[in-house]
Amino acid sequence: MTNASMVDDFLADLRPSVAWAGDRIEIIDQTRLPEELTVVELVSVDAVVDAIYRLAVRGAPAIGACGALGVVVGLDERRPRDSSGARTALAELADIIGSARPTAVNLRWAVDRVRDAAEVGETPEAIRALALSEALAIIDNDRKACKLIGEHGRVELAGAVNIMTHCNTGRLATAGWGTALGVIYAKAAAGEPVAVLASETRPLLQGGRLTTWELLDAGIDVTLMPDGADAAAMAQGKVDAVIVGADRIVANGDTANKIGTFSHAVNAKRAGVPFYVAADLSTFDPDTASGDDIEIELRATSELTEWRGQPTAPADVPTWNPAFDVTPAELITGIITEVGVLHPPFEDSIRDAFSKGVTS
Amino acid sequence: MTNASMVDDFLADLRPSVAWAGDRIEIIDQTRLPEELTVVELVSVDAVVDAIYRLAVRGAPAIGACGALGVVVGLDERRPRDSSGARTALAELADIIGSARPTAVNLRWAVDRVRDAAEVGETPEAIRALALSEALAIIDNDRKACKLIGEHGRVELAGAVNIMTHCNTGRLATAGWGTALGVIYAKAAAGEPVAVLASETRPLLQGGRLTTWELLDAGIDVTLMPDGADAAAMAQGKVDAVIVGADRIVANGDTANKIGTFSHAVNAKRAGVPFYVAADLSTFDPDTASGDDIEIELRATSELTEWRGQPTAPADVPTWNPAFDVTPAELITGIITEVGVLHPPFEDSIRDAFSKGVTS
Repeated sequence: MTNASMVDDFLADLRPSVAWAGDRIEIIDQTRLPEELTVVELVSVDAVVDAIYRLAVRGAPAIGACGALGVVVGLDERRPRDSSGARTALAELADIIGSARPTAVNLRWAVDRVRDAAEVGETPEAIRALALSEALAIIDNDRKACKLIGEHGRVELAGAVNIMTHCNTGRLATAGWGTALGVIYAKAAAGEPVAVLASETRPLLQGGRLTTWELLDAGIDVTLMPDGADAAAMAQGKVDAVIVGADRIVANGDTANKIGTFSHAVNAKRAGVPFYVAADLSTFDPDTASGDDIEIELRATSELTEWRGQPTAPADVPTWNPAFDVTPAELITGIITEVGVLHPPFEDSIRDAFSKGVTS
Repeated sequence: MTNASMVDDFLADLRPSVAWAGDRIEIIDQTRLPEELTVVELVSVDAVVDAIYRLAVRGAPAIGACGALGVVVGLDERRPRDSSGARTALAELADIIGSARPTAVNLRWAVDRVRDAAEVGETPEAIRALALSEALAIIDNDRKACKLIGEHGRVELAGAVNIMTHCNTGRLATAGWGTALGVIYAKAAAGEPVAVLASETRPLLQGGRLTTWELLDAGIDVTLMPDGADAAAMAQGKVDAVIVGADRIVANGDTANKIGTFSHAVNAKRAGVPFYVAADLSTFDPDTASGDDIEIELRATSELTEWRGQPTAPADVPTWNPAFDVTPAELITGIITEVGVLHPPFEDSIRDAFSKGVTS
């Protein structure tokens, strides 16, 4: 790829991670990648919550998109008789879907936004139309935000060729070309050299299964390594910069992201490698002061004891399996957003970004 | 367990990772753990090399024990007619077996020691008897060294209850109760509280499959976590100390060990958590000045792209899969050996340990 329009064409040809099909949501079942591209139709709220919980759809912006559309699915399922019933349904659906995963702030943000936009409707039909319109606007805005993040990141990281990333933050994680991977796509689209070192991201291997899959598919240079190889890779000069996504960024810049992110950041700091977070403003939670106040989801033991039915550990071993960790702001070089790259002190730069009112 | 003799009884009841059965080696096939305890008989040099290469037997001291006995298997296989032929066979066998894995210094050390001890024999039978005697002495010395390491470590880490470890360094990795896990067993045997946080150790999951298995089997408190959870665990106060094993320790204290060790060490340094290496003196390579001179084995892509036939990444993704990393000495609090705990500056403490001539 040599220019941005080629990337637009390229993205247009690919099935998005989350799409609206008139009366249902279609998602790529990411638990089946890389070996097969399976599309799952979601026609009930239970199916939406289940898809989010079991990570069939994952990545904070993609979860937000799916949750937003899930409110519409819920209205269709419940068929409220009047506007009062529809508003009650909206509120309940926002609570049910918004609680499917506790840490990702986009999900709650998206369903609340759909609820707020739709509750002013005067009939059930109007409320449903407003909800759908808002959900589609969230998706469109995410695509635009991804593109801007990519461009801002490309400029910020002009000298960086070898980029380490963690988890998956690309086309599969968002409605667009991604956040951290958006920067990679933007570099490739501009004809700039870029080579990605992807860490596997245990236990569910979003790096190994998804980031490698989508970058290989796009013809971008990618190499897979174990999560724990970060220190060795940096010591051997294999990494010019680290870019990761985020599930929640609080007022002081502390960032919740997939478990393993914090460890990469500590290693980057020691090795003198710049460490960037890429996220759109819907990922920010400026009302929470510091990372100490972020609730961290603990996930099932089975994620550590088996892989697709094959044992990886004794079935009865106690586990500690947090979905996320919190990288302290002091380890973060910059936060790449759709309104520009925020730098320390993050209390100030984050407040400024929000005070401009540019929350897409 | 409340005292050391109980641990001796306990270890005596268990099948060792490597044993001599009169005319063959019996090993526990560690690739089949945790779901089944499979004993494999090795009756040819090819089988010995294959078992070492595919990690059916693993852990530097266990590899050394298997390699040493492998020289005897090789003599039995070749049936040299005279002492000259037996000496030629010894030299060739030491080279073949000693090259099965390049990083672990114990393997080369063990086969060379068997060769040197046996080549003075005046008949093929005498050479075979000397080789076997030396191999069994290496195993007996390893058991004694493990016990001493455990005791020295227990005293050094008297205040530490919650201990993080990586890979497997216990009964499965040695001829005794282990090196880093030897410290855990010694604590348990002394009736002291101890709880282990084991990192999975991708890609082959020696922590998830083996360390958990042997500690659960011994009734010792163990919790499994992903490798990348190290930073979060330390930030949350879950770790009083880290203890790992070693595959090679050079003159300045730089330590090659399973990939992921260096990352744990960097995180421990930042969190102010003591970081210990436990290893017997056969693991040291005092003729190599620094870690820059350690050859690092790169392993197959398939270790990162599948788990027992189930895909974990696209089959055609390029990988970077080093077996080991090198933790710089500056990150190491102490090295626990059978002659005591070595402290910085390691150039001096390592030289002193060897100048005493206590190389078991």
